[in-house]
Amino acid sequence: MIDFWFSIGSTYTYLSVMRLGQIERESGIVFRWRPFSVRQIMIEMDNIPFRTKPIKAAYMWRDIERRAAMYGLPAHVPAPYPLAQWDVANRVAVLGAAEGWVADYTRATYRRWFEDGLEPGGEPNLSDSLREIGENPARVIAAAAGAQVGDAYEAATATARALRIFGSPTFAVGSELFWGDDRLDDAIAWHRHGSLAPR
Amino acid sequence: MIDFWFSIGSTYTYLSVMRLGQIERESGIVFRWRPFSVRQIMIEMDNIPFRTKPIKAAYMWRDIERRAAMYGLPAHVPAPYPLAQWDVANRVAVLGAAEGWVADYTRATYRRWFEDGLEPGGEPNLSDSLREIGENPARVIAAAAGAQVGDAYEAATATARALRIFGSPTFAVGSELFWGDDRLDDAIAWHRHGSLAPR
Repeated sequence: MIDFWFSIGSTYTYLSVMRLGQIERESGIVFRWRPFSVRQIMIEMDNIPFRTKPIKAAYMWRDIERRAAMYGLPAHVPAPYPLAQWDVANRVAVLGAAEGWVADYTRATYRRWFEDGLEPGGEPNLSDSLREIGENPARVIAAAAGAQVGDAYEAATATARALRIFGSPTFAVGSELFWGDDRLDDAIAWHRHGSLAPR
Repeated sequence: MIDFWFSIGSTYTYLSVMRLGQIERESGIVFRWRPFSVRQIMIEMDNIPFRTKPIKAAYMWRDIERRAAMYGLPAHVPAPYPLAQWDVANRVAVLGAAEGWVADYTRATYRRWFEDGLEPGGEPNLSDSLREIGENPARVIAAAAGAQVGDAYEAATATARALRIFGSPTFAVGSELFWGDDRLDDAIAWHRHGSLAPR
């Protein structure tokens, strides 16, 4: 099993979210979807990759555009960024992880973000994504705002911090971390061989 | 032709510097080695990826260690960082670009940095690297300190800035930028096909 640590609101995470279903089917590897607040950890580290760096942000969108095309993903970039409702989007994912629908929800909300330009955590993306996967928006949104989900969200972020995770997506194979969609192949190689296969 | 923009002192650039000779021979693609001051541009952008971020820096070294092993490169990490004599190391590279020995010098000085733990731009790395490639250290060090090389170094950095380059290594295929050793395959695909080949 590989732990897939992610935050909805991370841009590069789109590439992993949309690829992971097929990769699971083809590889036979189980990925455990683990939402946390990378934003909280990045604030603590004073790690601001894009907001104050327009040249780097422009490159990021072009890089994602090229790589999405390579993977056959119909992304429209730039997508709205940063998200206004980051924590709402991720608290819903935390509830989904407890109830078994986190992957379907995350795919649905990312698709609306990158294909339709609609922000995760806000409407209509949030309720439409929940309805699409057969969940009741009113129930989920109320539960996600509650203390139980808040505690689980903080606990997940604390676990990620203890693992020394600082970015999304991060693939964890035991104590080995692989940061970035572009390290997914490395994580799979490490899971299989305990090293990166020579290339 | 692909422009290989780099600064000696960048850690991930080690992986590209040590791989590029074989990749040139196998691919038939010519890479033009273009030293510049990524440090100057990063200071302007307030882009501090590692110095103030120990958790991210520790990940960077582990990532380089794993990928160096994947490529069969005998790196010892962490190597000394950051470099005390960044500009000296790169001014010598600028002279080498004008005189035709930049690739050999850069490989020699990176090998001493990552295999022997000796800083580029400082002694004994600098003079030993120059002697190894058949250049006279006294002549080169004097010329590299001169105004002509200083102007060329500034001009190269201005060109990189105008191209919206913000990191090392960056591979430029026309106006398309590919940042990072891990985007070298993308740059080669773009050079060949004008797109990233489906994977």
